Amino acid sequence: MAQRVLVLGGDGYLGWPTAMYLSRGGYRVAVVDNFAKRAWELELGVQPLFPITTLHQRVRAWREVSENEIEVFVGDLTDYRFVESVFRSFRPEAVIHYGEQPSAPYSMIDVRHATYTQANNVVGTLNVVFAIRDIVPDCHLVKLGTMGEYGTPDIDIEEGYLTVNHDGRSQRFLYPKTPGSLYHASKVHDSTNIHFACRIWGLRATDLNQGVVYGVETDESAMDEQLATSFHYDEVFGTALNRFCVQAAIGHPLTVYGKGGQTRGFLNIRDTMQCVELAVRNPAEPGEMRVFNQFTEQFSVSELADRVKAAAEHLGWSVEVVHAPNPRKEAEQHYYNAKHSKLLELGLQPHYLGEELIDSMLHKIERYRDRIDPSVLVQNVRWVPAEPEKTPA
Amino acid sequence: MAQRVLVLGGDGYLGWPTAMYLSRGGYRVAVVDNFAKRAWELELGVQPLFPITTLHQRVRAWREVSENEIEVFVGDLTDYRFVESVFRSFRPEAVIHYGEQPSAPYSMIDVRHATYTQANNVVGTLNVVFAIRDIVPDCHLVKLGTMGEYGTPDIDIEEGYLTVNHDGRSQRFLYPKTPGSLYHASKVHDSTNIHFACRIWGLRATDLNQGVVYGVETDESAMDEQLATSFHYDEVFGTALNRFCVQAAIGHPLTVYGKGGQTRGFLNIRDTMQCVELAVRNPAEPGEMRVFNQFTEQFSVSELADRVKAAAEHLGWSVEVVHAPNPRKEAEQHYYNAKHSKLLELGLQPHYLGEELIDSMLHKIERYRDRIDPSVLVQNVRWVPAEPEKTPA
Repeated sequence: MAQRVLVLGGDGYLGWPTAMYLSRGGYRVAVVDNFAKRAWELELGVQPLFPITTLHQRVRAWREVSENEIEVFVGDLTDYRFVESVFRSFRPEAVIHYGEQPSAPYSMIDVRHATYTQANNVVGTLNVVFAIRDIVPDCHLVKLGTMGEYGTPDIDIEEGYLTVNHDGRSQRFLYPKTPGSLYHASKVHDSTNIHFACRIWGLRATDLNQGVVYGVETDESAMDEQLATSFHYDEVFGTALNRFCVQAAIGHPLTVYGKGGQTRGFLNIRDTMQCVELAVRNPAEPGEMRVFNQFTEQFSVSELADRVKAAAEHLGWSVEVVHAPNPRKEAEQHYYNAKHSKLLELGLQPHYLGEELIDSMLHKIERYRDRIDPSVLVQNVRWVPAEPEKTPA
Repeated sequence: MAQRVLVLGGDGYLGWPTAMYLSRGGYRVAVVDNFAKRAWELELGVQPLFPITTLHQRVRAWREVSENEIEVFVGDLTDYRFVESVFRSFRPEAVIHYGEQPSAPYSMIDVRHATYTQANNVVGTLNVVFAIRDIVPDCHLVKLGTMGEYGTPDIDIEEGYLTVNHDGRSQRFLYPKTPGSLYHASKVHDSTNIHFACRIWGLRATDLNQGVVYGVETDESAMDEQLATSFHYDEVFGTALNRFCVQAAIGHPLTVYGKGGQTRGFLNIRDTMQCVELAVRNPAEPGEMRVFNQFTEQFSVSELADRVKAAAEHLGWSVEVVHAPNPRKEAEQHYYNAKHSKLLELGLQPHYLGEELIDSMLHKIERYRDRIDPSVLVQNVRWVPAEPEKTPA
């Protein structure tokens, strides 16, 4: 019988393609979403580059294209009664948890967005953890974390754990985290809580510390225009390479923040699909919180911009790279060496970032050029507020 | 002019004595509370051993006894508009933050209490951090954390930071935490967030990782019965030594959980007063999150029980020590060596746990023996639920 997999945040950039990928792969898939992301888009006045149908339309289109059914649960993970009802009815054997506020800039807008992000992510995840504990204790939680939890330490970033030798004694710790935004901090909180749940209740979990994802489509989303995923290029929800490609497509300079030496792990959206399925197919042991660093290559932001520039110029587009003031407070030149062997050992076949791939992104984006709104490329969310409030005399 | 100190959670076991201590010490003191603790007492059917007047009555009694004024703000730290109004009107130069749900067992009752604890503590603290950033950026945040954040690692527990040498490189990290309950995890989240605020916004903070506090009174609370603090002996809000003393006073066996080798840092409530004032008097630098391990001695739970037994027997009371099933899941025999020199270097004069001190606790408790409700000594909050839900066929 097909394994039951529940995808939380199944209406999102990664959640929806994951649902299709697993559905096509023979799993019985259900998705959960509360459409919070669509509300944040309305709030900020941004929209995905490709026209996105409703979740119900997507599911219908997927049924027509693939003859597979994806079940839909609409509700909020911070409402335990909803979470409980989903787990009791679907009884998942694996849960893939993308159902969080995923944007660092969004979390840094102001106190309201900061507290919303942390309460939403932490409470939603705790509810999921309790539902697993009390309803389906053998279920494997596959939780999307982020490489941004680690920050940029001056030693190698190991995969989740670090053995520390100190004054003649030794201890293996969860790798110490130094998150770069209050969103990243919310993911650190989740990891702390999930680790607790594994230690105390014997839950099985895989924490996927994902790098920055790029890419416009997967094999499944390419099957029909109605199956497109919600590709963002604005400053709040768009990731670096995606934004650079959109900038190139409209002749906007590629805006590298600060010195551009900020180095991160990156991966293709197709590899996200693979990684998540590898985690599901090879579950953690009861009581184990396994951590994978989920990315395939490291780049500095400047290197990324240069690659997009080169690919665009081969298409005859004229592209400029500029250094813009960095809205974030972060190290702009630093050591960075993050291990990422565990998913390769499980069989990950990486799609590396070649010019062909950037080409295909640029071509696809060009077809939707009329939908690009250049005004959202900069949204003025600053890590440190520009004008500190004046103290009254 | 007197320094303005804001005590969050100023109606609590430590908050109220701290407010009096600082008021007597020449500070201008205001307290914030939403009386959540009094609501939790009603919820669980427990009450403090000594009769407690209302906060307004306490403040009035303090005015009569000391001729000092303590200002009162009633409201909830999770409501930013309230926090903002307090900071704008009082403009604190230091904030002492006890305003959190402080009980590990309370956080472990069920999913609702777990999520409440984490959202309450994390959101309240974030609101305070933003209010400091935006209204009084030079204000020093003195945040009460707990030694329980560290767990029981097999290496020495340093004071807040750990320098890790790894493959020929070196990095100083916040000391990695392995919290023992979802309450303790909420404090770890707070530390992560406050560290972020210091790094990104240049806030100044002191994180006091406090040990288990014991004691029934301070110099100030002893000045008038109306100034008593809310001493708890029930399983949810009472700390180990306090509970043992109450058990001894009513001839109840001292219930040591499990093997009793669980070792923790302890301190006298009078030393909490000193430590907090030392932190206020010697503020952290801008951008610095300073961490002090705030305790004076380490004991195992069995050692504590033996000391109470010995002191009680000298009074002619017959006392038995029994090993009860451990409601917590924790190591019961482990290495434990926690550093705690920084507050001593600032001038802390410890009140060590001598028989005289236990004597005086026992005598004071004995006077209120009629108010002791033995039924609350065990409340059946278990870290691992006793009966996992049955899976329907």
